[in-house]
Amino acid sequence: MDLAALEEIRQLKYRYLRCVDLKRWDEIAEVFTADASAEYGTHAVRGQLSLHGRDEIVGYLRDNLGPEITTVHRCGQPEITINGDKATGTWSFEDTVIAMTYRVWIRGAAFYEDSYERGADGRWRISHTGYRRIYETLSSFDDTPSLRFLDTMWTATASSGEAGAAEKTG
Amino acid sequence: MDLAALEEIRQLKYRYLRCVDLKRWDEIAEVFTADASAEYGTHAVRGQLSLHGRDEIVGYLRDNLGPEITTVHRCGQPEITINGDKATGTWSFEDTVIAMTYRVWIRGAAFYEDSYERGADGRWRISHTGYRRIYETLSSFDDTPSLRFLDTMWTATASSGEAGAAEKTG
Amino acid sequence: MDLAALEEIRQLKYRYLRCVDLKRWDEIAEVFTADASAEYGTHAVRGQLSLHGRDEIVGYLRDNLGPEITTVHRCGQPEITINGDKATGTWSFEDTVIAMTYRVWIRGAAFYEDSYERGADGRWRISHTGYRRIYETLSSFDDTPSLRFLDTMWTATASSGEAGAAEKTG
Repeated sequence: MDLAALEEIRQLKYRYLRCVDLKRWDEIAEVFTADASAEYGTHAVRGQLSLHGRDEIVGYLRDNLGPEITTVHRCGQPEITINGDKATGTWSFEDTVIAMTYRVWIRGAAFYEDSYERGADGRWRISHTGYRRIYETLSSFDDTPSLRFLDTMWTATASSGEAGAAEKTG
Repeated sequence: MDLAALEEIRQLKYRYLRCVDLKRWDEIAEVFTADASAEYGTHAVRGQLSLHGRDEIVGYLRDNLGPEITTVHRCGQPEITINGDKATGTWSFEDTVIAMTYRVWIRGAAFYEDSYERGADGRWRISHTGYRRIYETLSSFDDTPSLRFLDTMWTATASSGEAGAAEKTG
Repeated sequence: MDLAALEEIRQLKYRYLRCVDLKRWDEIAEVFTADASAEYGTHAVRGQLSLHGRDEIVGYLRDNLGPEITTVHRCGQPEITINGDKATGTWSFEDTVIAMTYRVWIRGAAFYEDSYERGADGRWRISHTGYRRIYETLSSFDDTPSLRFLDTMWTATASSGEAGAAEKTG
């Protein structure tokens, strides 16, 4: 069991998701192989989405996850199998997406099925990432009239039932 | 510190929970010792539940988690202690159970207290699993009139306030 | 890569959060260095909070997280870097705080930025912990009239719309 490689792959996955949630688009390219593919199964956007190549994946994330969209990607429970310079990994996953402008939550769970490759430089990268949804929901801030955002990283807050921007100063 | 055994036990736990959420009842038996016991502290069903033996545990899961029930079991924060061919583990845990027919969410958190054993075949298995609830709630879809299921793995969706099955095509 | 030290630091972090959620204030002091600092960015209390020294941190937790407050701290996705007897770690984090008396939920996500030190006794401790919020919300039980607490570890339950204490017996 190559425990160091397992740790490298875990940290690779965590770096990828952190770069998504912190919108670090310049940093994120490095986690993918040049010919990486991604299948994001979020029905909130337009059904199953297939992206091909590092540039297309990073471009998609950059174009669709601007400051009006807050994301929290939480994965864990890695079952990683290494075979030489290739590896596969299954992960449990929950995500929260907040679209402040539209005043909606998108929340769900899934299982990731990823592939990884170790390059000539000895670094592991994601060669494929995709997931199967267990469920995904959409609901409006309007369902919870008392809702207040006490803090937000990306936007002035949009509270239910009152002017929210004043909350931003916390 | 036997790091390989720690990794094996983590992957054992993750496989167990993945088999639950994906309803892989034929695969799940292998994660338990023949005389394994389980204490599931979910009050949604009938208070504390004690199950004895691999067959009773798997039978309970199969009988109670049919396609009308969607589950998401998320555990992490493992504190595992190994003592020869036995081990114990504490895990933080959150679960989401969606009963589409009854249009309810059951959500909560707990700490697992597990025991594990390494068999003559060198494989670790769960000999006991149980948890203490921090909290568990039940609430209806009716509280959130805007709720829509954009995707579900197991059932046609049941949205609030409109015919949900049409959403299934996403 | 010092895999044993990585595991020790992970278990340290998990022990810390478990002691918070289980209110084990006598046990928790041991996870901090004597001069540890903490920056808890929860706006629900009073904006950014800076604590200095193990005693002040433990005192703050003990004074503010009594039995009327239920907490669930879930962290994962550790990116830990070790440099001799010092280390840094970034973690993804979600928390749920339930204030039964006030009938509110406080929920949010953040990234922890921690520092760790290995003492003369060979044990790792937290020398600094702090986080940057992605978002934090506050909402009332009153938004979800059907809400029932099926189980709670710390308090008699406070349900929406009915006398909740009767639920405590499960």
